[in-house]
Amino acid sequence: MKHLFLVLIIFISIDISAQNDANNIKKIYSNSLTNGKSYEWLEHLSNKIGARLSGSLGAERAVAYTRAELEGLGLDKVWLQPVMVPKWVRGLPELAYIETMPGKTTQVNICALGGSVETPNGGVRAQVIEVSGIEELKTIRLDRIKGKIVFFNRPMQADLIDTFEAYGGCADQRYAGAMEAGKLGAVGVIVRSLNLRMDDYPHTGSMTYGDLPVSQRIPSAAISTNHADLLSTMLALDPTITFFFKQTCKQLADVESYNVIGQITGSQFPDEYIVVGGHLDSWDLGDGSHDDGAGVVQSMDVLRLLKESGIKPKRSIRVVLFMNEENGLRGGKKYAEIAKSKNENHIFALESDSGGFTPRGFSFDCSEDVFNKVLGWKDLFKPYLIHYFEQGGSGADIGPLKNDRIVLAGLKPDSQRYFDYHHASTDVFSAVNKRELELGAATMASLVYLFDTYGIDAE
Amino acid sequence: MKHLFLVLIIFISIDISAQNDANNIKKIYSNSLTNGKSYEWLEHLSNKIGARLSGSLGAERAVAYTRAELEGLGLDKVWLQPVMVPKWVRGLPELAYIETMPGKTTQVNICALGGSVETPNGGVRAQVIEVSGIEELKTIRLDRIKGKIVFFNRPMQADLIDTFEAYGGCADQRYAGAMEAGKLGAVGVIVRSLNLRMDDYPHTGSMTYGDLPVSQRIPSAAISTNHADLLSTMLALDPTITFFFKQTCKQLADVESYNVIGQITGSQFPDEYIVVGGHLDSWDLGDGSHDDGAGVVQSMDVLRLLKESGIKPKRSIRVVLFMNEENGLRGGKKYAEIAKSKNENHIFALESDSGGFTPRGFSFDCSEDVFNKVLGWKDLFKPYLIHYFEQGGSGADIGPLKNDRIVLAGLKPDSQRYFDYHHASTDVFSAVNKRELELGAATMASLVYLFDTYGIDAE
Repeated sequence: MKHLFLVLIIFISIDISAQNDANNIKKIYSNSLTNGKSYEWLEHLSNKIGARLSGSLGAERAVAYTRAELEGLGLDKVWLQPVMVPKWVRGLPELAYIETMPGKTTQVNICALGGSVETPNGGVRAQVIEVSGIEELKTIRLDRIKGKIVFFNRPMQADLIDTFEAYGGCADQRYAGAMEAGKLGAVGVIVRSLNLRMDDYPHTGSMTYGDLPVSQRIPSAAISTNHADLLSTMLALDPTITFFFKQTCKQLADVESYNVIGQITGSQFPDEYIVVGGHLDSWDLGDGSHDDGAGVVQSMDVLRLLKESGIKPKRSIRVVLFMNEENGLRGGKKYAEIAKSKNENHIFALESDSGGFTPRGFSFDCSEDVFNKVLGWKDLFKPYLIHYFEQGGSGADIGPLKNDRIVLAGLKPDSQRYFDYHHASTDVFSAVNKRELELGAATMASLVYLFDTYGIDAE
Repeated sequence: MKHLFLVLIIFISIDISAQNDANNIKKIYSNSLTNGKSYEWLEHLSNKIGARLSGSLGAERAVAYTRAELEGLGLDKVWLQPVMVPKWVRGLPELAYIETMPGKTTQVNICALGGSVETPNGGVRAQVIEVSGIEELKTIRLDRIKGKIVFFNRPMQADLIDTFEAYGGCADQRYAGAMEAGKLGAVGVIVRSLNLRMDDYPHTGSMTYGDLPVSQRIPSAAISTNHADLLSTMLALDPTITFFFKQTCKQLADVESYNVIGQITGSQFPDEYIVVGGHLDSWDLGDGSHDDGAGVVQSMDVLRLLKESGIKPKRSIRVVLFMNEENGLRGGKKYAEIAKSKNENHIFALESDSGGFTPRGFSFDCSEDVFNKVLGWKDLFKPYLIHYFEQGGSGADIGPLKNDRIVLAGLKPDSQRYFDYHHASTDVFSAVNKRELELGAATMASLVYLFDTYGIDAE
């Protein structure tokens, strides 16, 4: 009889705790959808501050604004973590056209890629060689590349369901195209925008020259998908047409900026840290509403939602708004460096950097044991239509925290529209839906709540 | 040994058919995302034709256009099914304002509800009584209602995850508010738009007077959510303010219109019918891109995608573009009536009428046995992030086909943005994302393929 009694008590206690979790998660979602702050914060960040490229006035103002807002939440601690960041400036609006015969030009929409050098004073004018990628470039006779503009025109693959996979299959052209073409004697690079839509907006993004000598560093720019198709069609008709572009972008000296950090100190295990974050910097063309204003305000709201829902964390929960994800990752590296130097025990980190769209679930970078534990929580999310729990990557900013023990995760929102806006002038506040954003914040807060409650030890 | 051999053969054949299904579904998705027609058709329907209220020129042109497009697909049969439909016209743009003292007015955005009578020539001017719904109205002293404008202001419940549930919780105000207020001597009705966003756009929709005598039929209109809040705030400050509105809408005599039908005749069971459809009519304020242009073009593309993917249906597959879902359901009723009179054996009907957003799954109205059979197909949809398979409602147009045997289903897209556009001037082509629309078409085609392949008998 004694054994039977014990078994009953255990079952009852499991039931109560599952019910308690369900109730707390319901409170979190309800608070976010009826009383969330994420949308209001995003409105300010996007419309009052705007673009926030590292080293810009916008980035500085975003640091001050988010710090002040976090201070207003009654957290246990809010602080700035200094970090030196690169400063790249776009300069004057870019100019580009296709010239089919002297004086007969068609203007096209381009934007310099982040990190690119400027063109010579009079711009670059040359014939164009179109390739589908770096591999193809390497198969071409050198004399066909020398003195030319290389046009990387591999489109994102439309039949991949996860658009990030399609992005991953094309991003090398943008990131390393100019480096590879520069080695071969090209004078400039034009890259098809990483966009699944046909439209008129060029999409910027980071690129590298690696350790190329300055003399081989050639300017590179992205061209809109419509104009990429136009250029390709015109080249097919006449391979001798020329392309002209001019840009005045510059890499300046590094400047000081900050990660913005807020903390609720844990009641039972204050030395165990959970991080939730997004990146505060953005590209300069739009206002970075999806990339990553959404992740910033959702992460801020996670701490507020826990408080509003009457949840007192056992572990220390930190919101970290990372600086410089887009062109250096300095904020993420700095945060991990400091955490390591202080021997802080980080058990879980969650990043939102895939847009403020309807959340579908999470991608986990963790051991099989912890993943199985997480799968045990999946049913708690079913009422909120959160169904995606898979092993995979997490987020760029939290990546440097990786060790044998920490669990890293990334929020996975619906990805269909993300690349319509990513790094383009279309990434603006009106492209974000309030409910979708708020559902994301609640989904993140619910996962943070569960990791705080149950830790990361296998059961 | 003989038995063992038999068992092996069965296992292998199951494996092969599952692999075959996976391959066919992959082809369907790939065709839709790389070579779909749904977006191009929607562009024409939305931008070249526009709004398609029953009895309007737009509806007529949509019938002709979709018929011609279906005829171009090389189906076995395309025809029009005549049906008499109601014809309601909005007349001149509505005018409405709040008057706080003589001559001091604030204009507000309203639109007549579909089916409403016009206001008297000089408009309606009266004090306002705000209620949260029909139930509350019935608790109020008659002399407080008589001669007043009743303002139904119950908002949609934001913390419901499925926005259709929130819609269902409020639609009675719009549908029956004027009928109930008319019985009590009110002179007009203003209803808060069924919209979860705060914005300036009024949302129309159907309403009824039941069998009220003409003398008690009072005009009713929807007001934008921003202006509903404004009116409510002004009433709280001064309950004696007056509201003025004028509308010239009219119900005219019924006119002839059509359901548009196309068919691939089944190779093995031509007398078993599968229907896939949406409704061709729309409200008149936007161009009906989500409601239900999306469902129309997705349904058309289902048949094309099956053909393009080399799938030869065993059963007869019909696309039915129903007329008059919005204000009469005459097309749905007519189709079912004719099907019944011809003793046609309909085994499955699928409707898309919840917007062209990322598909999440289906809602099934069927027996437990068939539902369990369907659950056995769920894994085939996992690569496409289709996870929602639940029992529930299907679609208004296919509802009249219901009998003991037929399986009815509705496509369930992500619902977060739907009511931003529903029945409003914001429901336009630019609100539809190409990939989301195409994923919906592929998801529908895949389910139709499975029902065609395996029928509806329990296994």
